[in-house]
Order: sequence, then C-alpha cells, then structure tokens
Amino acid sequence: MALLSHLSALPTLEDDLALVESKLENAVIAKDPYLTEIAKHLITAGGKRVRPGFTIASSAVGQSNTVSVPDEVLMGGVAVELVHLGSLYHDDVMDEAEMRRNVPSVNAVWGNHTAILAGDFLLARASEIAASLGTEVAALLARTIGELCEGQILELQSAYSLTRSEDSYELSIAGKTASLLSTACRIGGLTGELEREVIDQLTNFGHAYGMAFQIVDDILDIIATEDQLGKPAGNDLIEGVYTLPVLLALKSDIGDQLRELLGKELSTDARDQALTLIRSTDAVEKAYARAQVWAQKAKAELESLPSSPATNALFAATNHLLERANSAG
Amino acid sequence: MALLSHLSALPTLEDDLALVESKLENAVIAKDPYLTEIAKHLITAGGKRVRPGFTIASSAVGQSNTVSVPDEVLMGGVAVELVHLGSLYHDDVMDEAEMRRNVPSVNAVWGNHTAILAGDFLLARASEIAASLGTEVAALLARTIGELCEGQILELQSAYSLTRSEDSYELSIAGKTASLLSTACRIGGLTGELEREVIDQLTNFGHAYGMAFQIVDDILDIIATEDQLGKPAGNDLIEGVYTLPVLLALKSDIGDQLRELLGKELSTDARDQALTLIRSTDAVEKAYARAQVWAQKAKAELESLPSSPATNALFAATNHLLERANSAG
Repeated sequence: MALLSHLSALPTLEDDLALVESKLENAVIAKDPYLTEIAKHLITAGGKRVRPGFTIASSAVGQSNTVSVPDEVLMGGVAVELVHLGSLYHDDVMDEAEMRRNVPSVNAVWGNHTAILAGDFLLARASEIAASLGTEVAALLARTIGELCEGQILELQSAYSLTRSEDSYELSIAGKTASLLSTACRIGGLTGELEREVIDQLTNFGHAYGMAFQIVDDILDIIATEDQLGKPAGNDLIEGVYTLPVLLALKSDIGDQLRELLGKELSTDARDQALTLIRSTDAVEKAYARAQVWAQKAKAELESLPSSPATNALFAATNHLLERANSAG
Repeated sequence: MALLSHLSALPTLEDDLALVESKLENAVIAKDPYLTEIAKHLITAGGKRVRPGFTIASSAVGQSNTVSVPDEVLMGGVAVELVHLGSLYHDDVMDEAEMRRNVPSVNAVWGNHTAILAGDFLLARASEIAASLGTEVAALLARTIGELCEGQILELQSAYSLTRSEDSYELSIAGKTASLLSTACRIGGLTGELEREVIDQLTNFGHAYGMAFQIVDDILDIIATEDQLGKPAGNDLIEGVYTLPVLLALKSDIGDQLRELLGKELSTDARDQALTLIRSTDAVEKAYARAQVWAQKAKAELESLPSSPATNALFAATNHLLERANSAG
C-alpha cells in the first residue's frame, strides 16, 4: 500500500491501521442490515487510510520507543476517515461517478437518494465518535466538515471561470483538502495528549502537507498517463475545475489559445489539445515549485518538533509527496 | 403562525423564537458570502420553528413564572432547527422539488451539487453548536442525525412495496420524524439543566408526539384538499411511500383493488382512484385511532411532570395535533 511506504518509518503503523480497519467497520453498523451494507461499501473497497495514518503518526511524535497507540487516537483516526468517506459518497453523487476504488460507486448500486443519505449517515457517525472524544475534538471535526463544504462550494462557484484567481484556488484547496489533513494531525495531537505547542505545529504541518498534496494531485491530472491515474488525464478540465497549472498556463504565451478552448464543456479532442498546450508551457514546473514551497513549510514545522520515529515518518511522507509528481508523466 | 397557536400557552415564546431567528441567521454565516446566501435561503423563507419551540418549552417545564430562557437553550433550538433545515436541503434534491415554503428550492436555484454541499454545511454547523453545548448534546445530536438517515433509508427500501409491514412503517417514522422531535425536547431539558427524570420524560413525550405528528401528516396526505396541503393529496402514493392509512386499506375489503393500482409509478388518474378507494374504507379512522394512542402516551408523560405554563403549552400542542386531522378533508 502506498501509505505504508509514505509512513514506513513508523514501525507499528501497519498493526495500528489494522485496528482502525475493524473499528471503521464497527462504527457504521446500523440497526438495519441494509444500511450497514451500504455504509460499509467503500470501507470494504479498501483505501490507503492516509488520514488515520497521519492521526496515528501525529499522536506518536516525540515518543522515542514503540508504545501502543491509545484507543482514543485510533477512534480519532476512524472519525476523520468517516468524514472522508462520507464526502466521497456525496462527491460520487455530484460527479455521477460509476466507479470508486475499483468497485461500483454507492450511487451506481443503490441510487442517488440512498447515497446522499448514507453519506449523511457516515458524517453523523463521525460526529458521534468525535463527541466521545470531548468537546474540542467534536467542535474541530464539525468545523472541518463545514470547511470541506466551503472549499467545494467555492470550487463549484468558479467552475468554467477563466478569471479564477490563484487566491481563489488556494482558498478552495485549503477547504476541500488541507482542512481535513490538518485536522487529522491535530486530532492525533489532541487525543495523544501532546503539548499545546506541539499540537499547533502538527496542525500547521497538516495544512501545509495538504496544500502540497492537492497541488501535486492537480499537476498529476495534467501530466500523468491514464495508467498512472486510473482514468484519462484532464478530468478536472472536463469538469471545468481550473487548477493551479491551468491558471498559470492561462497567464503564459499560449494563454489566448487555451482561453479559446476552455470556459465551456470540452470534447475529449479539445481536452487533449488543452493538455498539450498546458504541457508546452512552464506552468507545471511553476506549480511544482509552489508545491515545493508548501512541502518546505511542512518540513519546517516538523524540524522544530522532537525527533522520533513518528516525526521521521511524517518527514518521509512529505518527501514522498514530491516524488509522486516527479515520477509521473 | 401555526406554532404560536400550538404553544400559545407559553407567554414568552414569541420573543424567544425571535431570538432563535437571529441566532439561526448568524449560525450559517460562512467565509464566502455566496455560501452564506445559499445557507440562509430556507431560513429567510420562514418556517414554523416547531422544533426550537419544543426545545424552549421543554427547558421551561416546572418553572412557575416567566424567567428568561438561557442562551444555551436557544442555541440548542438553533442546532435542532439546522438539522431539520439541512435534511430539507437533501430531501429537496432527492425529490427533485422545485418549491419549498413558497420559494424556489435550493436545488432549483443553485443546482443539486450546491444543494447537497449546503445541506452538509448546515448539518456541520448544527454539530458545531452542539459541541459547544457539551459532549452529551453533541453525541445526542449526532446520533439523531444518524437515526434520521436510518428512518429515511428504511422508507426508501420499502418504496412501492405492497408487503411493507406496519412495524416497518413505525420504525421508519420513528427515525425520520420522532427522533428529532424527541431530541428537540431532550436538548431543552439538558440545556435547561432539569432533573434527569424530567429530561427522560420530556424525551419520551417528544417521541410520542413525533409519532402522532407523522401519522396525522400521513392521514392528511390522504384526506386533505389541495388548498389545505399546498400540493395535491396522494403525494406519498406517487412516491411509492405507503403510509399507515394505505397499509390499513390494503388489509381491508378493497385491498385487492388497491393492490392492482399500487406497487408501481402512478398516473394522476390512478392516484385519484387509489385515494377514493382508501377513503371508502375505515383505514383513515383506524390510523387516526393509532395517532390518538400516541398522543395519549405523550400526554401521559406530561401529566407526571410539574405543572407550569410550559407543561400546559406542550399539552395544548398535543391536543392541537389531533384537531389538525379532524379539521381537514
């Protein structure tokens, strides 16, 4: 699993994530077996569990030797992952996605109505677990779900907009991606009962990591092959989501040509032309430099933390992020 | 407003609900004014605020004279109403509703994507407020959102089913309606810092009231005029939701005739035939008797509570509920 290579410096992670896995399945048991089946659908489809991994690693920062991870930390990871899964249920309805993680999407199997309600159910279970971890975690997770929605709505609002600003892009990815990664780390610090200063640093680390992560993801949608992505490149272009490399390309020499193609629904031909145009500029390089800046910020936060296997693991995960973009295309 | 007549025995209710109204508007302010506008849409469209009314009334049970309602109680009412509103956003997407409360629905104005996200946003804000009221309220509200989803999914699962049992109907309305009304009362008791025994009685009252409320609502969909409903009767039949009066009619002499019509999508002609058939039986009368039993249970809970203007108001609201069905048709 990719995550294990991300956080492989953390010796007990695999065991801890196995515990998260069974706790995830328990968390979505409903009175009705029908709902339980629907709520489990994407859990059993697998996933990298990046966010619980970050919760666990964050909780262990400063610990010099292998101690068992407290149950509260694992449940914090479960809550964060349930938010991620719930939002995927809703994403797939909105994108009319047929597949997710190599299995048919919930909406494809049970219809949109059920997928919306089951997504709500997962978010509710996440909130219930958060409440069991205290008011600070409960308030934080609720605020984070709100930020997720804000980021996504901002993105929808600027769909197909050729005048989308880089600020608007940053605000959107801060909400839709960085927020939950930052909260995953913060909940690790809170449930691991770390010092306030460390908790705040972990929160900043998660935010910076999340920003870099999303920029890299957006670069991959421009440069990666269909094999690497599991879907054709340029998917964001099709959906009218103009990400950082696109915004930078619009400012380049070929900006006018690109503007002619974009701003409307695209044929696959037009998408391929747009991709070729964007790749012909230094937009990807510039976007990558921006991801590097965020990764540097992330690592700077880690550098002031006590050294430990967990700190090293988070450091390695951040480096791995940049390699993702380098090895693609 | 209908609610004021429901709970009119409570002298300060109108003022308290005015406070709830402004707190509701504040609660949905987002960083982005665009999202704020969407999140406010159904709030400004008005509404009876039945649930905050019950929270406020519950908190005041046992108080002999008019004291001001604590801020926590009002915020509890806000949280409960936000859950109700968030679920309406999702309901309207699912039902492809064009109108809600005499204004265009959120999905009609901004599209399904935005309506799903804005619904999530309202639920998240509700959870955030609940967290500020302590872990017990936070856990309770989260559990209630889960129950709402469970009730609705159960209903979807039995859509168009001619073998839907009365038990399945009761389980579904317990989740989709009684749960939030019961929680509205419980949160009133919790935030009003009433005694545990009183809190539990209020919870039971809310559940029983909610069950009666939904059965009456389902009766009205069979017997009320279009003028009274604001939409044609038989809407549930069109959507394949076979409620208690329908299930009872299916067991009557005309059961086979009705079975011929139902179990599939209905033309308006077929709907009218089905309505005529159901009205020709004693199914509505029997369903009404069931609502009366629940209303009796609700009033029995109130009878053992300390007498006070609030207790009287809840009593009057329960009586009013039954009159609703009597005055229709």
